[in-house]
Amino acid sequence: MKRVVIIGSGNVATSLAHGLAACCEVAQIYSRRLAHARELAAAIGCENATDDLQTLISDADVYIIAVRDDAIAEVINGTTDNGALWVHTSGSKPIDLFAGQRSRYGVFWPMQSFSREMVVPLDDVHFFAEANNDSALADLLSLGHLISRHVMEADSEKRLRLHIASVFSCNFANHMWTLADEVLNEAGLPFDAMLPLIRTTIEKLNHLSPAHSQTGPAVRHDTQVVSNHLSILDGDKRELYRLLSQSIMKRNPLNDHVE
Amino acid sequence: MKRVVIIGSGNVATSLAHGLAACCEVAQIYSRRLAHARELAAAIGCENATDDLQTLISDADVYIIAVRDDAIAEVINGTTDNGALWVHTSGSKPIDLFAGQRSRYGVFWPMQSFSREMVVPLDDVHFFAEANNDSALADLLSLGHLISRHVMEADSEKRLRLHIASVFSCNFANHMWTLADEVLNEAGLPFDAMLPLIRTTIEKLNHLSPAHSQTGPAVRHDTQVVSNHLSILDGDKRELYRLLSQSIMKRNPLNDHVE
Repeated sequence: MKRVVIIGSGNVATSLAHGLAACCEVAQIYSRRLAHARELAAAIGCENATDDLQTLISDADVYIIAVRDDAIAEVINGTTDNGALWVHTSGSKPIDLFAGQRSRYGVFWPMQSFSREMVVPLDDVHFFAEANNDSALADLLSLGHLISRHVMEADSEKRLRLHIASVFSCNFANHMWTLADEVLNEAGLPFDAMLPLIRTTIEKLNHLSPAHSQTGPAVRHDTQVVSNHLSILDGDKRELYRLLSQSIMKRNPLNDHVE
Repeated sequence: MKRVVIIGSGNVATSLAHGLAACCEVAQIYSRRLAHARELAAAIGCENATDDLQTLISDADVYIIAVRDDAIAEVINGTTDNGALWVHTSGSKPIDLFAGQRSRYGVFWPMQSFSREMVVPLDDVHFFAEANNDSALADLLSLGHLISRHVMEADSEKRLRLHIASVFSCNFANHMWTLADEVLNEAGLPFDAMLPLIRTTIEKLNHLSPAHSQTGPAVRHDTQVVSNHLSILDGDKRELYRLLSQSIMKRNPLNDHVE
């Protein structure tokens, strides 16, 4: 059984610790705050909690640095190479943070928004792995497969694209709901009315690509409805409605579309 | 117990018939195709199916016209006023279709995308009601409350705003997922990786308004990440990323935001 040390006790570390405890030996938890390290260690039945990087055990197989992006370098500088596999869990930081400081290293990025309050089951979370050599990559992928059904190799370039895609998928989709809320608010209507519709829209993604499940006036080239809607809107809602409708129409030429 | 006649056997009619059968007497189902009327009637234990508007029973309390938008007028013209409450179920057609042809009438719009293949439980669907007088409205609201926990009055102006909001909430949110899919496709990455994140984003809407649950580089005013993402994108994805980030930043001035 793999011996793992988890460095961090925040959002990512908490869910990782719970997921790893079920299939590995989580031998030690480090946090800058001892109380936090102890709390997380106790929650997963680990007996070694520390707030001192100098007391990290040296015989683990994997060291997972799950701390804030701007604290990763500090952890690497404050610890030494012991030949084990060292990884950080940031989607946006490069693998090179370890260069020259470790012999076997990588990135182990779980693509999910975690919170410390809620442990996320990891089996459905997509993990993206990068490592500095084939042996480290093989070890990292096999660790990933212990806790998740979705583990893929992804270098910095791919992580960047995943990040951009998540901005569209989550941040910008959420902004669409903010704009809808504003349209409804002006007429005293509740945003809650949208929730069943939104859920149905997402359920479709289990069977169809988003391009294939597109509905609405733009994909039907129903220019009368589009104009009617534009006449009610103003400000950036109007500009965005116009551009988004164009963007949908461009991808769905009229003669391709059968209602 | 209210006696209801359902005119139609399509997506909306099917779910309405199932929902109403649990709390009303669905006395008759009409469809232009007798086989469809019979099939739906049999499914809900109604014994009267017809394909002839002239044979509609005259002693029901409510007649629900749940047919294609452009077929509603034809049904109204092909039937006569019997003093009962007559309603259509279209979000985009005005109540005036009935003017001069019925004495008690309205619109009874379930805001959900239905399909004939899947019966949607109505208790969570939001219904929007409009009627030509107070008595008709009271009857329509009380019918609504029998089948759904969410029934609200909404005139044509409010229905138009609900429609615009649903375009943002569903059609445009879905287009965000199409754009994400394109970004991933170019690097051979699977869109499926987004699904857990998207589900988490939606779950937040159960507790928070979309404006309050906004995350991502734009709301943090992380202009370095935004510029970096823009440098990778082109075409309308680039233009939309820029405008959407601006739209988010404008609503979240930097000094309001605590990370």
